[in-house]
Amino acid sequence: MPEFFNVQPPRSALEELLSQLKVDTRSECMSTAEALGRVTARNIISSEELPAFPRSSMDGYSVRANDTFGATESLPAYLEVCGEVVMGAAPQVNVQPGYAAIAYTGGLLAKGTDAVVMIEHTNRVDDHTVEIVRPVAPGENVIQQGEDIGPNDTVLSKGRQIRPQDIGALMALGITKVAVAKRPRVAIVSTGDELVAPEMAPAPGQIRDINTYTIAAAVTRAGGVPVPIGLVKDDYDTQREAALTGLSNSDILVFSAGSSVSSRDMTAQVLDGIGKPGVLTHGIAHKPGKPTVVALIDNKPAFGLPGNPVSALVVFGILVRPTIHSLMGYTMPLRSSTVVARLSRNVSSTTGREDHVPVNLYEEGDVLTAEPVFGKSNLIYTLVRSDGVVVVPLNSGGLYSGDEVTVTLY
Amino acid sequence: MPEFFNVQPPRSALEELLSQLKVDTRSECMSTAEALGRVTARNIISSEELPAFPRSSMDGYSVRANDTFGATESLPAYLEVCGEVVMGAAPQVNVQPGYAAIAYTGGLLAKGTDAVVMIEHTNRVDDHTVEIVRPVAPGENVIQQGEDIGPNDTVLSKGRQIRPQDIGALMALGITKVAVAKRPRVAIVSTGDELVAPEMAPAPGQIRDINTYTIAAAVTRAGGVPVPIGLVKDDYDTQREAALTGLSNSDILVFSAGSSVSSRDMTAQVLDGIGKPGVLTHGIAHKPGKPTVVALIDNKPAFGLPGNPVSALVVFGILVRPTIHSLMGYTMPLRSSTVVARLSRNVSSTTGREDHVPVNLYEEGDVLTAEPVFGKSNLIYTLVRSDGVVVVPLNSGGLYSGDEVTVTLY
Repeated sequence: MPEFFNVQPPRSALEELLSQLKVDTRSECMSTAEALGRVTARNIISSEELPAFPRSSMDGYSVRANDTFGATESLPAYLEVCGEVVMGAAPQVNVQPGYAAIAYTGGLLAKGTDAVVMIEHTNRVDDHTVEIVRPVAPGENVIQQGEDIGPNDTVLSKGRQIRPQDIGALMALGITKVAVAKRPRVAIVSTGDELVAPEMAPAPGQIRDINTYTIAAAVTRAGGVPVPIGLVKDDYDTQREAALTGLSNSDILVFSAGSSVSSRDMTAQVLDGIGKPGVLTHGIAHKPGKPTVVALIDNKPAFGLPGNPVSALVVFGILVRPTIHSLMGYTMPLRSSTVVARLSRNVSSTTGREDHVPVNLYEEGDVLTAEPVFGKSNLIYTLVRSDGVVVVPLNSGGLYSGDEVTVTLY
Repeated sequence: MPEFFNVQPPRSALEELLSQLKVDTRSECMSTAEALGRVTARNIISSEELPAFPRSSMDGYSVRANDTFGATESLPAYLEVCGEVVMGAAPQVNVQPGYAAIAYTGGLLAKGTDAVVMIEHTNRVDDHTVEIVRPVAPGENVIQQGEDIGPNDTVLSKGRQIRPQDIGALMALGITKVAVAKRPRVAIVSTGDELVAPEMAPAPGQIRDINTYTIAAAVTRAGGVPVPIGLVKDDYDTQREAALTGLSNSDILVFSAGSSVSSRDMTAQVLDGIGKPGVLTHGIAHKPGKPTVVALIDNKPAFGLPGNPVSALVVFGILVRPTIHSLMGYTMPLRSSTVVARLSRNVSSTTGREDHVPVNLYEEGDVLTAEPVFGKSNLIYTLVRSDGVVVVPLNSGGLYSGDEVTVTLY
């Protein structure tokens, strides 16, 4: 029996899963002020317009534009100042031809006016008179009613992650509650006879469990809720029970497999024996992370991540994170944090396999340089010592020193 | 009286503030499992080594390397299989010359062995015998004791933001509690006679307060704790009182100024009259954001941000965010989320001023393209409709269509 019976490039493994997954995003209503980072569950439509009235975009004088036509430094227009529009109040002044009113940035236009002359293009001659040295067109330096957003405009579309400015835009319209996607719950099962809890002192041959915690943190970062199920031995029945518990309680199930061959196979068997269709992918063309299992169990995505913590975290980013986003109906392109850097040395790879190379970033003069962090194996401190990762694509034999590379920050 | 009496480039305004600020980072102890995104308050030193024992990095056979010297496909070495090292247990087998033990990835080496032959370079001849077709050097496919981290090594240095892998690395060493910097508290005062709370229906001339909420979200994102003080009228005594309340209760004070000239000046007066040294910068060479005030009040940073919500948010990113990081002792280079894109049209700027141009990103074939989002003024929906920002540097007259630009994602 081959250990890997259906090796796929990571992208097609993900596509296969998502194409078979029926997404039914559940929503909840929350305070807009606290919705930072959440994903909108439906299109949000404006019922008002912004600004509600024409406003000045400059400090200066609101005028009738045609009173300024032809004004120059040498032949200014003279207007009589008939008052000001106080901030926060409806305009009391009514400007007749030949008059102007003091205008503040953001304030309403005085009645009768259609433009604002910047203060820089005026000289106050005396208490009553202002000199205008440049003409303005109608509408100049004015934000028209509805220019920022109109009634029935889409304020935020469905599936968007809410940023500080989006909160502000909602508040500006008085939308103080917002429907957001519920955070998907992700059950985490860490398997392996060798694992003990971090607070324990490991006996010879034992190691402390890492994956429960790295995966939980990665789930949180991706917008999900981690649901740790606990440590489970390399025993089929126990693992099956843990899988059932996880599935009953969550939207996604993540196993991190033990390291032995038999235990890796067990994850696939467990994930295949619970519901339909079962295992979709067993083995991905990615380094690290080959022994990865992708399954769909009665419409719940399940993943068997490699037991090695580095591989587990890397594969999480490639497969589990986009699945969490998908369940939230997150529609924005996944633009990770990246920087462009120059590679400090050659990196070899194998065609037909995507390679994930951790790198350290440093400035060399003005050039941001990416130094590959090599390790004999995928040790967790390789990731701790790295700032990010360079991906060597599937069809490349490697990268060269001096190449410009995109570094995805961890 | 000039409106701006000390206009500085944003970078020097920040440097002046931080050079005068005495940072005394306060720390708190918390569960490592929950420390994602927090900043380490001191160097964390390892008291153990990882791995604690030599481990195999491959599935295969642990052997005495010199039993394999000279082995080839045509002239294999034959070794007797004397057992396996079960995962999670101390090795029971003791391998004599001429013998081999089954080894699993991550498992301990059998006693007496010093290398592992990958399973791919072996053939099992019968129940007792394995054929080795390639030699291994001593130490090959072995992770030596302490190779990941040694005793007294620095696990994480002070001032680092904790990522999922860092949590894993701490757990691997049994470090389940960690000292992190307290989140700086940032008091937020929104001023302006025209402002009403978002849940209110604005009367003519009034607008809903946005800045309290956008700034609070930006504080949260930067790692601080927002402390909203509330809406305050354009009145010196009221603002002074709000400033004192904010300062008594927080580490940083942020005012967003009203939009009128008098109210902008008032912020500077308020921030200058409370403690020493007072206002450091009044006006920055940045668009948007010129009417910004930077002050230090009895060793607490205080900012007067422009009243326009876009300007306020942009200046927050330039000045307040790095100040929050600085108070946490965050020492890592501030690498924002960026992507490289091609500009879709010319952008003009003024030499001697840094310009912040919101852009929208879209794929044009394979090319990520940045389309400037122009607006007559700094309307909040300009930011909502944008994916990020391109900065036109201080000494540039603009950027050209087709230029490769770095887009900092919002």
